[in-house]
Amino acid sequence: MSADETPDQSVPDEVHEELMAATYRALCAHGYADLTMQRIADEAGKSKSLLHYHYGTKQELLVAFLGYLFDRFEARVAATEGDAPETRLRVLLDKMVPGADDDRDYDRFGLALNELRTQAPYVEAYREQIARNEAVIRRRLADIIREGVEKGDFREVDADRTASLLFAALDGARLQRVAVTDPSGTETASQSAFDAPTEVRAALDEFVVENLVREGGDE
Amino acid sequence: MSADETPDQSVPDEVHEELMAATYRALCAHGYADLTMQRIADEAGKSKSLLHYHYGTKQELLVAFLGYLFDRFEARVAATEGDAPETRLRVLLDKMVPGADDDRDYDRFGLALNELRTQAPYVEAYREQIARNEAVIRRRLADIIREGVEKGDFREVDADRTASLLFAALDGARLQRVAVTDPSGTETASQSAFDAPTEVRAALDEFVVENLVREGGDE
Repeated sequence: MSADETPDQSVPDEVHEELMAATYRALCAHGYADLTMQRIADEAGKSKSLLHYHYGTKQELLVAFLGYLFDRFEARVAATEGDAPETRLRVLLDKMVPGADDDRDYDRFGLALNELRTQAPYVEAYREQIARNEAVIRRRLADIIREGVEKGDFREVDADRTASLLFAALDGARLQRVAVTDPSGTETASQSAFDAPTEVRAALDEFVVENLVREGGDE
Repeated sequence: MSADETPDQSVPDEVHEELMAATYRALCAHGYADLTMQRIADEAGKSKSLLHYHYGTKQELLVAFLGYLFDRFEARVAATEGDAPETRLRVLLDKMVPGADDDRDYDRFGLALNELRTQAPYVEAYREQIARNEAVIRRRLADIIREGVEKGDFREVDADRTASLLFAALDGARLQRVAVTDPSGTETASQSAFDAPTEVRAALDEFVVENLVREGGDE
């Protein structure tokens, strides 16, 4: 699947993976505004001309990178297949909040991604790829909710609407946290914003996941 | 209260109101990146030097503008005082989604505000004022939830956590919508993102507001 997402069909899968992982690290280290092809090349231990050869401009490389995030999300969803819908939902929601060991990447990458999204209204290629990524996040969450309803694990709900709530809440919480947190340190101007991702995750369990399950059951 | 928020205590209230309203219109019309003191002055029908005289730099004016948004939010909360907590909550949540007649301002201003927030990690004065604004939005929502719990209208919940969910969900939905919508037109790259604010608002009624009320009552 990942080869289909790259603009240059000739990039070998393992080189693509390597360069995209380097782009991720470069975004975390330098942010979106200070990202250069040279910095990505340095992260990858490759030449800048190789990057241009495979992806074209920096903007085209970033569109390919958004496609790579799309692939990673799809792989993550696929990895939960066969599990109970409630488990699948909890696992995917957990991936959208900071883990015990990745706080800084969550913040740094969240900040870079938000800077990129802020460009999206003005850059059609970003806008299209971001729209596609986010629509598929909503769709996969909704599919899992529908699966739960069909199996009788979840009560009858509007799956699309519920999925929109789950995604917007965790996405908004991350935005709120990274906007008030100094990217060079761990200082935050607002504890309530810094805690928003974990607080919102807990609230989604209480108000949404447990509500879906509560009135379901084996009927 | 609004005079306390302005950096220059000498700005008369009505001039401050006029200039802040002009800043709002200029942000909607030009976005954050293309906002200039001249454009704000043109919107206000005043001279650029008057703006500099009262507020200093553009950055200082924008911090004052964030303070103005803070005041407007507080006034909005105050206007609901005396109403039932459920009504207060619904009214404030409704203010965070596009109304029937203000779709374009919701989008344009949401976009400008998000651009400003994207600068916040790098500009301490923005970060501090945004942190303050957002913390108070969470606090006021939590106060209303606590009021509902105390009155027996709402069931016992963690008010701060619930407020974080409400705010993050509607804030995230707006971000998702404006990121994929062409600011110069009404075209959107994603219908599910465009609909997110109204969908999320409806889901919050179903999963949160009705849940708060459901197990409450006069006891």
